[in-house]
Amino acid sequence: MKRTVTHLADGRELIYFDDNDTAVRGERDRRDLPPPPPASEIRYDPILDEWVAIAAHRQTRTHLPPSDECPLCPSTPTRSSEIPAYDYDVAVFENRFPSLSHRNGSIEPPHLPGLTDTRPGYGRCEVVCFTSDHNASFASLTPERVRLVVEAWADRTAELSALPHVEQVFCFENRGEAIGVTLHHPHGQIYAYPFVTPRTRRMLASAHRHALEHGGANLFADVLAAERAAGERVVVRNEHWTAFVPATARWPYEIHMYPNRQVPDIPALSAAERDAFAPAYLEVLRRLDGLFGIQMPYISAWHQAPVHVDRDLSYLHLQVFSSQRAPGKLKYLAGSESAMGVFINDVRPEQAAQRLREVEL
Amino acid sequence: MKRTVTHLADGRELIYFDDNDTAVRGERDRRDLPPPPPASEIRYDPILDEWVAIAAHRQTRTHLPPSDECPLCPSTPTRSSEIPAYDYDVAVFENRFPSLSHRNGSIEPPHLPGLTDTRPGYGRCEVVCFTSDHNASFASLTPERVRLVVEAWADRTAELSALPHVEQVFCFENRGEAIGVTLHHPHGQIYAYPFVTPRTRRMLASAHRHALEHGGANLFADVLAAERAAGERVVVRNEHWTAFVPATARWPYEIHMYPNRQVPDIPALSAAERDAFAPAYLEVLRRLDGLFGIQMPYISAWHQAPVHVDRDLSYLHLQVFSSQRAPGKLKYLAGSESAMGVFINDVRPEQAAQRLREVEL
Repeated sequence: MKRTVTHLADGRELIYFDDNDTAVRGERDRRDLPPPPPASEIRYDPILDEWVAIAAHRQTRTHLPPSDECPLCPSTPTRSSEIPAYDYDVAVFENRFPSLSHRNGSIEPPHLPGLTDTRPGYGRCEVVCFTSDHNASFASLTPERVRLVVEAWADRTAELSALPHVEQVFCFENRGEAIGVTLHHPHGQIYAYPFVTPRTRRMLASAHRHALEHGGANLFADVLAAERAAGERVVVRNEHWTAFVPATARWPYEIHMYPNRQVPDIPALSAAERDAFAPAYLEVLRRLDGLFGIQMPYISAWHQAPVHVDRDLSYLHLQVFSSQRAPGKLKYLAGSESAMGVFINDVRPEQAAQRLREVEL
Repeated sequence: MKRTVTHLADGRELIYFDDNDTAVRGERDRRDLPPPPPASEIRYDPILDEWVAIAAHRQTRTHLPPSDECPLCPSTPTRSSEIPAYDYDVAVFENRFPSLSHRNGSIEPPHLPGLTDTRPGYGRCEVVCFTSDHNASFASLTPERVRLVVEAWADRTAELSALPHVEQVFCFENRGEAIGVTLHHPHGQIYAYPFVTPRTRRMLASAHRHALEHGGANLFADVLAAERAAGERVVVRNEHWTAFVPATARWPYEIHMYPNRQVPDIPALSAAERDAFAPAYLEVLRRLDGLFGIQMPYISAWHQAPVHVDRDLSYLHLQVFSSQRAPGKLKYLAGSESAMGVFINDVRPEQAAQRLREVEL
């Protein structure tokens, strides 16, 4: 594996990850780009005890461009995309329209009344291109390519964790127009947040209580062990990974995938665990796509430990979920989910797991 | 106002609320209906410390029927809808496909492994028809009709709060196909939950801390006072109500509407407060619809106090939010929001408030 760091015309970083150790990535960005956009800010909500990011410049971001203008395809002699190379394996670059940025330092956040704190939206947002093939999907990648993507996630998690202000690194993929994806080229994103995210805080509060009540036991490990023992909701397993539909799935099709050994984050995975991830995850995605014979819309989200706190309570896992509840029918987050946080799932988790296991690959 | 309780052919309750004190609602349901569907269940998620409802029978619910088969329109001599009357003002009935039901008593929930508790999905789900006019919208109702809807919400909140197992009553409206509405007829819903909802628990935890740290002060009252003093985000106000875009709005267009006096729930509103609600809320909705000249999709959600706990910490308020961020563009909940709970808002709350104030009515 070779890692090459370059910069785009506006100063943003671009990093190539190549399978071939002799790859040369000398192409320059020929574009004349404006400077990165103005800052975002984060605001503290005293009622929900959460930070919210306000990023008004993102209203103008690229929205479903025609495929011959795809900014994630390689450049050609006559067209410059976000990636100057004429071909690539995996490429990671700073998002041109970031929700969070380490370039926010000079901005003074506005004064807000009363109880609402506000700060610059420190952090970093990156785009991860999984392949140069515009018409591929993650599910169609080779295991070798998935292994390279894991290396990229590990590299970026370690590097972003070391940035000032960063408290948590989130690697994820949004797939499908049904969940608002604005670029079809197979890609994921990485957010480096300047706080521990609300969901992670809730999970860690539960993990802390569980450890206190059960002699230091790890909550996630105990849930995983119970699911492995029950078996009814397990969809895929191998020596190093277990993927199951949680008994409390919130989405019609939701799969949680844990390494069998407790680790805090992707950089902590062993080489053998990284190797074993690819076939297991590809099988999960192919079973999802096989459910209705369509490319399923999904969100795939890595839950990693915070950078500085509670790493021993954490347990790396991947949450994959789809809003597709039947052919042609999506689950929407309406009043109960969006306003009250109460999920109503129309598909029994046991039935979802069985349907996923029965997909013929 | 006259209130008439009747029953549908399968035993579900139907309640008419009429402006005319002499209205007679003697029409019988002529349909031959199967018994109410099998039970739902609720499952406790030990990782997120939340209950999730599993309601598999809802997969077969009515989905965008043609308008001449609308189940919420009045019946005619040749067609029976969910409402036997040939005309009505406001009608409330038990949902035919409920996520929660008090008819769940005889069902034994399945055994789940380890840490996941499970119980019957006790509770109740009701449908509130705001008008017999299929093509109306809440924003087009008269103030008198809105006043009658408030009476219906107050009545149902009080009655459902008295049911066994019920811990919180949630009145809401989902509007627009963009958020998954399956029936166009103007209607809202009421969920009576057998637990305090996750969002309410988080708000009350904040309110509890705030009271401890500020000599018993009410968190919501302090936020409201700060917004009223700042004024910058206030959209509509009158003697009894204040509607503002919160400084930490999560959605492109989000408005919180509080009575100026702290009350726990709708039944606690005075007659004057109920009277003053209609013009203020209608103005909020009409300003929303005026933003882009379209009927905006929205969720309108009443945050009421739990039935049995923390009523003194609570403060009734209405949260109205839309995912429409620009003409033809929706905000989707993608990885950051759905998996991590971190909202990225592309519209500055101060700008949203100004745009709403500038709409010409």
